[in-house]
Amino acid sequence: MFDKDTYIRRRRSLLERMAGEKGIALFLGNVEAPAQYRDNAYKFRQDSTWLYYFGIDAPGFGAVLDLESGKETLFADDVEIDDIIWMGPQPSVASVAAGVGVASSAPYAALEATVAAARAAGRPVHFLPASRYATALTLSRLLGIAPAETFSAGKAGCRRASEPLVRAVVAMRLVKEPCEIAQLDDACALGYEMHTTARKGIRVGRVEQEIVGAMEGVTLAKGWGVSFATILTQHGEIFHNHSHDCTIEPGKLMVIDAGAENNMHYASDFTRTYPTGGKYTARQRDIYQIVYECHELAFSLTRPGTSYRDVHLAAARHMLERLSDVGLVAGDPAEMAADGIAGLFMPHGLGHNMGLDVHDMEDLGENLVGYDDDQRRSPQLGLGSLRMARRLVPGNVVTDEPGIYFIPALIVQWKEQGLGKGCVRYDKLESYHDFGGIRLEDDVLVLPDGARRLGPQRLPASPDEIEAAMEQDKTA
Amino acid sequence: MFDKDTYIRRRRSLLERMAGEKGIALFLGNVEAPAQYRDNAYKFRQDSTWLYYFGIDAPGFGAVLDLESGKETLFADDVEIDDIIWMGPQPSVASVAAGVGVASSAPYAALEATVAAARAAGRPVHFLPASRYATALTLSRLLGIAPAETFSAGKAGCRRASEPLVRAVVAMRLVKEPCEIAQLDDACALGYEMHTTARKGIRVGRVEQEIVGAMEGVTLAKGWGVSFATILTQHGEIFHNHSHDCTIEPGKLMVIDAGAENNMHYASDFTRTYPTGGKYTARQRDIYQIVYECHELAFSLTRPGTSYRDVHLAAARHMLERLSDVGLVAGDPAEMAADGIAGLFMPHGLGHNMGLDVHDMEDLGENLVGYDDDQRRSPQLGLGSLRMARRLVPGNVVTDEPGIYFIPALIVQWKEQGLGKGCVRYDKLESYHDFGGIRLEDDVLVLPDGARRLGPQRLPASPDEIEAAMEQDKTA
Repeated sequence: MFDKDTYIRRRRSLLERMAGEKGIALFLGNVEAPAQYRDNAYKFRQDSTWLYYFGIDAPGFGAVLDLESGKETLFADDVEIDDIIWMGPQPSVASVAAGVGVASSAPYAALEATVAAARAAGRPVHFLPASRYATALTLSRLLGIAPAETFSAGKAGCRRASEPLVRAVVAMRLVKEPCEIAQLDDACALGYEMHTTARKGIRVGRVEQEIVGAMEGVTLAKGWGVSFATILTQHGEIFHNHSHDCTIEPGKLMVIDAGAENNMHYASDFTRTYPTGGKYTARQRDIYQIVYECHELAFSLTRPGTSYRDVHLAAARHMLERLSDVGLVAGDPAEMAADGIAGLFMPHGLGHNMGLDVHDMEDLGENLVGYDDDQRRSPQLGLGSLRMARRLVPGNVVTDEPGIYFIPALIVQWKEQGLGKGCVRYDKLESYHDFGGIRLEDDVLVLPDGARRLGPQRLPASPDEIEAAMEQDKTA
Repeated sequence: MFDKDTYIRRRRSLLERMAGEKGIALFLGNVEAPAQYRDNAYKFRQDSTWLYYFGIDAPGFGAVLDLESGKETLFADDVEIDDIIWMGPQPSVASVAAGVGVASSAPYAALEATVAAARAAGRPVHFLPASRYATALTLSRLLGIAPAETFSAGKAGCRRASEPLVRAVVAMRLVKEPCEIAQLDDACALGYEMHTTARKGIRVGRVEQEIVGAMEGVTLAKGWGVSFATILTQHGEIFHNHSHDCTIEPGKLMVIDAGAENNMHYASDFTRTYPTGGKYTARQRDIYQIVYECHELAFSLTRPGTSYRDVHLAAARHMLERLSDVGLVAGDPAEMAADGIAGLFMPHGLGHNMGLDVHDMEDLGENLVGYDDDQRRSPQLGLGSLRMARRLVPGNVVTDEPGIYFIPALIVQWKEQGLGKGCVRYDKLESYHDFGGIRLEDDVLVLPDGARRLGPQRLPASPDEIEAAMEQDKTA
């Protein structure tokens, strides 16, 4: 936990940003998430916004901030003798509240009465979209609305939740404080260690899962665990491939997209693509080099005042120029970029915000988090998936993760629909159907005068660096 | 997945057991469980009963068995091009259904119509208690009942769920098939490896979390992960202590209660208690020896026809006899046992069923799973927590896990309330306030003529075996 003043200051700032609003703001921490039954839960993960404002990393808490009087109340139940046997002695709720500068506390059941009283008095109850089913059920009960109404309406943002509250929270969490940057550097150090362990484990004949276990063990030993489900696959063209039952084959590309969550719940998120035998083939190296250039270009453009949408577009344009060099497209790069041709090769966005969540605040609605009010989301494949488009300000933390993939089903679809006709060289693409995909990702902090990559050390990134590292792994 | 015939046979057997019932039986597989937001989910864990009857280890499935016509229908959605980009090509729902011998399939939305038609025709809809909030919401929507009504009513069993269906499922899952026993042996082999890794990692000065990470990495490398949240603590007197931030100190007892879930989702569950420095003190050894004797005694009594309640009671009585030898209680062991005095030292049950869940089927209601119809749950501390009391039959798999703990808050409470007056030597207990706790646990299969411990190898268990293993770890 950060020091008490951090949480006091954040809540005060939130109240100031909500100064024009009436009523109360309701916050719910997470409860345990059953995996198989109530008492066999997944490892507890607190709600990120709750952690940001209240810091208390335990289940069963709620809070109300009165937007008019400024009164803060924490709701939770003190433990009884049975709980002491199973959970050990616990501090009182009052002392937990005091520990994060909240003056008033009450049993959890009083939360219901507090919200009911506000509603009865016609006062607005501001709440954030539910990120879990359990929270949806609680909000439904407290507010008398259907559970489905409590979720974020996806990209569009709030459905019944409070847009002013979402906007105030987003504005704060988007700009990382120095204490948060230190945590992100720490999570990146752990991510570096995970990835290094994984790279050293790549050996033809091993089963992918063995490497996953070793790398996840690293982050469990020093941090909370993984910041998202590990992607480790010789089918990089499948973005969210979470099966790890393949044996490592020679001559393939191994995409490893994985990150650590440290004990303070800050995330890291790195991707590297390794040649399974330690050396890229000429064709693999050609495509890797293009991804690497896009990655470096994006980093060089990342600075305050530039929109990350423009950084995405610059990377996409460079990708098309260079794909033209290797003969996979033909035409004017600017025109092809405007037509969204890059989406065939990179049908995802350049990056996303990162912080307490690996896709920071995605539960609050992608557009409210990642788009300025004057920006509209593109309908194009690729750019349409861009999660962070905003004009950058110092303290933003974004990922820089271009990739090139050869997705057979997508290529067939485009060809059949006549998309990219005249510029996509479908004849040449035939031989790439078994290529897979390449992605390269670092985590980037926007500084007043540019940007820096997070973490004390950078993972090998260029083709030469990666081959050299894998050569050294062999002899070590 | 087991072969198709296994699932066909199980569903046929279920239909036969439900032959007297009208209507349909509704089964819901799990959906993804969001950790932070919808697209950042916990590692997918399928519902265990779903795995037992349908085997399909993927989210978003439902099924209906018509109890009268015998018709089986699987409900799920085929993937679209967007899903193929993110998830890769997927088999059709029809082919997945055929793979587990289900003849008919339909889109997930048709499940709603099927259930609605049954309800409109006045046909009963049998369902199992929800084990997760998401399932509760789906059942609520399909059946028009409050989400809270869909959960199991704790120990008492069903609230709105179908007791005949619960009973039929419990009767089948309680008796493990040969193919399941092979999986349990496999999970136990993995658990052995986890525990061995952990034991070798115990070293004064290390942080507990480092050992947890190493042991969890072992099961992630070869299996699904842990079968429950790892307990690794120098405060064994706190049963569900999931914090691992303490540094290992000399002269303490380290309780490690952890298990693996293999890739077929069968569990193991072992506990060992190690002296942090490699040698038990005389006092630690005295108490350990008692726990070890209770553990061995329980195993020797585990056989068909004996109730596990009686095994618990025999172990509790032996514990009191031997606690009397070391002067912590005084009186007639049989009388003290009847008075529940053992509960002060072991306020939990001797063991539980194990299978696809580490506490097998706990979501279906503890009493329906663990108690015969003529057995009543005891109100006594300890015995009252016994999850498995039934008369044993071949194929049952139970844990044998006695323990002795010195829980300061509980000792104070008993003393203040005058419990155990005249037999508990509270004066002697004073000096045990910092002792901690000891537990010893193996997984046991009931055989036609006795029982065997699961897994190819047994972890060191006696005080001598444990000290010898730790000595060998040092020199290895």
